[in-house]
Amino acid sequence: MTVIEAIESRRAIKHYDPDHEMPEEDLARLIELTKLAPSSFNIQNYRLVVVRDPELRKKLRSVAWDQAQVTDASVLFILCADLEAHLADPAKYWSHAPQEVQDMLGPAIKPFYEGKEQLTRDEGIRSSALAGMTLMLAAKGMGYDSCPMVGFDPEEVAKLIRLPDHHALSFMVAVGKQTKPAWPRGERLPDSEVVIHDRFD
Amino acid sequence: MTVIEAIESRRAIKHYDPDHEMPEEDLARLIELTKLAPSSFNIQNYRLVVVRDPELRKKLRSVAWDQAQVTDASVLFILCADLEAHLADPAKYWSHAPQEVQDMLGPAIKPFYEGKEQLTRDEGIRSSALAGMTLMLAAKGMGYDSCPMVGFDPEEVAKLIRLPDHHALSFMVAVGKQTKPAWPRGERLPDSEVVIHDRFD
Repeated sequence: MTVIEAIESRRAIKHYDPDHEMPEEDLARLIELTKLAPSSFNIQNYRLVVVRDPELRKKLRSVAWDQAQVTDASVLFILCADLEAHLADPAKYWSHAPQEVQDMLGPAIKPFYEGKEQLTRDEGIRSSALAGMTLMLAAKGMGYDSCPMVGFDPEEVAKLIRLPDHHALSFMVAVGKQTKPAWPRGERLPDSEVVIHDRFD
Repeated sequence: MTVIEAIESRRAIKHYDPDHEMPEEDLARLIELTKLAPSSFNIQNYRLVVVRDPELRKKLRSVAWDQAQVTDASVLFILCADLEAHLADPAKYWSHAPQEVQDMLGPAIKPFYEGKEQLTRDEGIRSSALAGMTLMLAAKGMGYDSCPMVGFDPEEVAKLIRLPDHHALSFMVAVGKQTKPAWPRGERLPDSEVVIHDRFD
């Protein structure tokens, strides 16, 4: 499947075969591809919670508007972010780069985020979304469908997955084998409403 | 190019042919594909600022760590979000859906966000990133390279593009024809550091 076809055919699918189990090798490959998403300074601050425990899925569904895909999709990913990823030794993220790049970027990471709580949170949400979009398109390429979700009680979900301090909960992505297609995609807003040339009026 | 190849071969490219101009039909197609990214409740709250004015690009480069791609890429996209998109008439986003879906989801949008400033901002950053990732992979499929960027002074950039109130500035994506490849991609963090099974310890 071409990347253009994947973008054009990806839809938020709500109905999945509850009996389908994703093979371990597919899950590993999906995670490998997701990890190729970019992150600022390569800090890889996204965290992928892979939920397969059926009991936990039931509990999550009960705090996610009782949406069927939470229990019925093959895998439920909960995308989170570690809001302290920038505090680690920069060598962790940059040991592969030429020395002059390491010397320039390594020391820049911590001061860029330090004391900037909103920027740090934005970075967590952004990285998790870059990873989540990559995950959804990779899934499509591997013969799966997906559904991104924000319809849940974030405090209850955080409790159920024991989200640690200094982490943000971003969104969920259900991945599985569809049993019912989405309704026809609606028109997008016209460019005049979402595209701005050079600067706002 | 397959979607898997696009994900695997996309890199943050810093050096572009400054003489390349993106044909209007490529730009229109890239925007069309970007707009297929999902957004919560389909509110399409991302805003794509397409910067081609060379004078403005020079000024942006001066507040973006003097990074060459800001002026040299064919197009500079600045991804923003309208933090009041959820206040519009829901029919704007849902007129395509079956009546029972409209009846259920339409009235849910405003109360979901109302009075929740952090959630609204998260949604803006998330949507802009879902769109930006789609943009980068679509660009790859169309024979372009890209570079996502947060290395800029957000207040100065906001002034230069006259970012309106109730909008968030998220990140930039330069798109163009590369003249120099990226250095080899480094190892990603091991799954043990970014993948959590079922729940955190």
